[in-house]
Amino acid sequence: MNTTVTPISAAQTANPEELINGLASEARAAQRVLSAMSSEARAAALKLAAAQMRADAETILSENIKDIEAGRANGLSGAMLDRLKLDKDRLEGIASAVEAVADLPDPVGAVIDTADRPNGLQLSRIRVPIGTIGIIYESRPNVTADAAALCVRAGNAALLRGGSEAVHSNRAIMAALTAGLVEGGVPAAAVQLIPSQDRACVGAMLTASGLIDMIVPRGGKSLVARVQADARVPVLAHLDGICHTYVHSAANPEMARKIALNAKLRRTGICGAMETLLLDANFEAAGDLVKALLDEGCELRGDERIQSLDDRVIPASANDWDTEYLDAILSVAMVEDMDAALEHIARHSSGHTDVIVTADDSAAEHFLTRVDSAIVMHNASSQFADGGEFGLGAEIGIATGRLHARGPVALEGLTTYKWLVRGSGQARP
Amino acid sequence: MNTTVTPISAAQTANPEELINGLASEARAAQRVLSAMSSEARAAALKLAAAQMRADAETILSENIKDIEAGRANGLSGAMLDRLKLDKDRLEGIASAVEAVADLPDPVGAVIDTADRPNGLQLSRIRVPIGTIGIIYESRPNVTADAAALCVRAGNAALLRGGSEAVHSNRAIMAALTAGLVEGGVPAAAVQLIPSQDRACVGAMLTASGLIDMIVPRGGKSLVARVQADARVPVLAHLDGICHTYVHSAANPEMARKIALNAKLRRTGICGAMETLLLDANFEAAGDLVKALLDEGCELRGDERIQSLDDRVIPASANDWDTEYLDAILSVAMVEDMDAALEHIARHSSGHTDVIVTADDSAAEHFLTRVDSAIVMHNASSQFADGGEFGLGAEIGIATGRLHARGPVALEGLTTYKWLVRGSGQARP
Repeated sequence: MNTTVTPISAAQTANPEELINGLASEARAAQRVLSAMSSEARAAALKLAAAQMRADAETILSENIKDIEAGRANGLSGAMLDRLKLDKDRLEGIASAVEAVADLPDPVGAVIDTADRPNGLQLSRIRVPIGTIGIIYESRPNVTADAAALCVRAGNAALLRGGSEAVHSNRAIMAALTAGLVEGGVPAAAVQLIPSQDRACVGAMLTASGLIDMIVPRGGKSLVARVQADARVPVLAHLDGICHTYVHSAANPEMARKIALNAKLRRTGICGAMETLLLDANFEAAGDLVKALLDEGCELRGDERIQSLDDRVIPASANDWDTEYLDAILSVAMVEDMDAALEHIARHSSGHTDVIVTADDSAAEHFLTRVDSAIVMHNASSQFADGGEFGLGAEIGIATGRLHARGPVALEGLTTYKWLVRGSGQARP
Repeated sequence: MNTTVTPISAAQTANPEELINGLASEARAAQRVLSAMSSEARAAALKLAAAQMRADAETILSENIKDIEAGRANGLSGAMLDRLKLDKDRLEGIASAVEAVADLPDPVGAVIDTADRPNGLQLSRIRVPIGTIGIIYESRPNVTADAAALCVRAGNAALLRGGSEAVHSNRAIMAALTAGLVEGGVPAAAVQLIPSQDRACVGAMLTASGLIDMIVPRGGKSLVARVQADARVPVLAHLDGICHTYVHSAANPEMARKIALNAKLRRTGICGAMETLLLDANFEAAGDLVKALLDEGCELRGDERIQSLDDRVIPASANDWDTEYLDAILSVAMVEDMDAALEHIARHSSGHTDVIVTADDSAAEHFLTRVDSAIVMHNASSQFADGGEFGLGAEIGIATGRLHARGPVALEGLTTYKWLVRGSGQARP
């Protein structure tokens, strides 16, 4: 079966607020049907959606070419065009990822805890879907399928607002997804791509309290900042990943070198990359570690004591301690002791991931207890801060907020709970 | 030891935003000290605070008289004055409640789950305090002690903004609490009463993103509505408690009568009181149940079929299905079947507590699964919707939002979690 891609002009003319509220109301009704489906039925529908994407590969790839051509004409950078580009292999990867999400254990219906009250009431808390999730993202068309799959697996409706650069690709992917999901019994309105690229639609999503239950922004810092600033709906996100690695006096020098190089340089553009290195004044191999990073081509911005270790270190400005470089640049400070490291992290960390390297377990436990970030690590690279690496299967995002979910957020973070109370006629005295 | 009550004029002149931001920054620093204290030390400090309230009883009661006199002069209603009034017994109740919270199991440090990854990384999620909680409340001075105790037990700082009617009482209670907590090693800034009654301080609290982590409004609907409308900080609250009881065709008539009378009339002013009764068209004792409610003095507003059961039933308007009466008034509808009941609840419930009465367990399970409210009950009065009744010891509030915590929120809801990752030098491939 081949699905047809509806023309992009549809619904372009509606008032953005009416459009979003209308779609969200339909999503709400569809979500009730979705959440009444069995776990097996939701998983099977996702597999049909994956199969349909494979069946529609030709259409999706030819729609993708339209986006690439428009992107070239609009002067998109090579990196942007690469993010946008689909081919057979990438599309297969997207379809396989949907199948992998279908195979993840379903969080819905899990019993969190139970209690029997003296009056005979039996209490239990069970996981239920959140409701309707709004996803606002930029150029990567794979987010369309990834986010939709995670939402559906956990029984949620999804309202997707993709970037205009990827509009043809997203619509083609969504057409295939919808066809597969509908074949599997999921109402079409449960997963919807916002049909208008009007920027006011984003604003309407952000203020749709009571209609959209949570917003997840997927994209660069300016997108996340705008969403956080304007949203009246709860947002699951991280703005910055200013991750610290503290090399304690008792760190093994070779382990410190291996972890620091990996945390900074394995991939510099991810939110779990180290941005600040704190070297304990009593760590004896500080000079070697600084040299190793410089030798690997990393720019180091250091305080005076770090500058004195190697001529290639340039002076850090006050801003550097609060900067997420996402590049082969690292700010480096020497700290007197554990307390000074904790103080620096409390002041400058974005609450994403902070690491201690030490062979002293009690120092490590002290650090793990005192650092108040979403993820705190001992003797490991901060680049492990990832839902897949944590065994969660896939992630909808990483959250640095303090409520609901922190760190890598996967299926469980797309659920909430309700209390069930089973009685035998109890009235309250 | 007697503590002195600082004069109310202090800090009245500061710019509200500067004032709140300054207090919140001090609270943040104090919270770091508080969260580093042992569970036993936090509990002991709360017991010292309770003891200090007892020691300061005379001062607190004489300050309370000032509020009562001012309230009388300002024409407060008898009910308002009663809420405001303290006496020896009530103060003893407040002190005992603080001790009871001190004795509750500490949620902080509890391990939520653990996982060992194939690469040797050991993951665990542990409960940690949220941070700084803002409490905005009206006339009851007991909230000052209750809310502070719950926050401190779970390692959080508390910024309390009480109503101006209770300003003398609140300041006297806070002075005693602070003296006791400080004696127990808790920094004074960890629990603070906002020293200004300027209404702009409430606005400043609501927009203090990054400084205050969560706001809990405690009071009437207009307070909650204002907080929900203006807050940029996450809010834990319920606006309405429009609770339904559905009497299924297979309900035991005597049990239905007992539950309905209790759910509506035990206390009409609480959020868990039933506001709408749905009678299945095949429930044969509908007439008797309507009569019993009327005989107890409850005003019934019914649809046509309910009106036909008894002359005393007055017609319900469309608004009645969305009204929280908090009074001896009940809207009553006849529904064709389970589906119609579910449809009515999905449309009109405020998501607080909804109940089915039935002797048919499979009908009950269907209802428990399909109704998407914070609390769903079978064969019990909705008036059980309460943290104490749920065995949580005490509650900071009841939440009808979908994220973080739902239903009665106690100590666990005042915590979040962080991920700990313990490695042995792992770098990500």
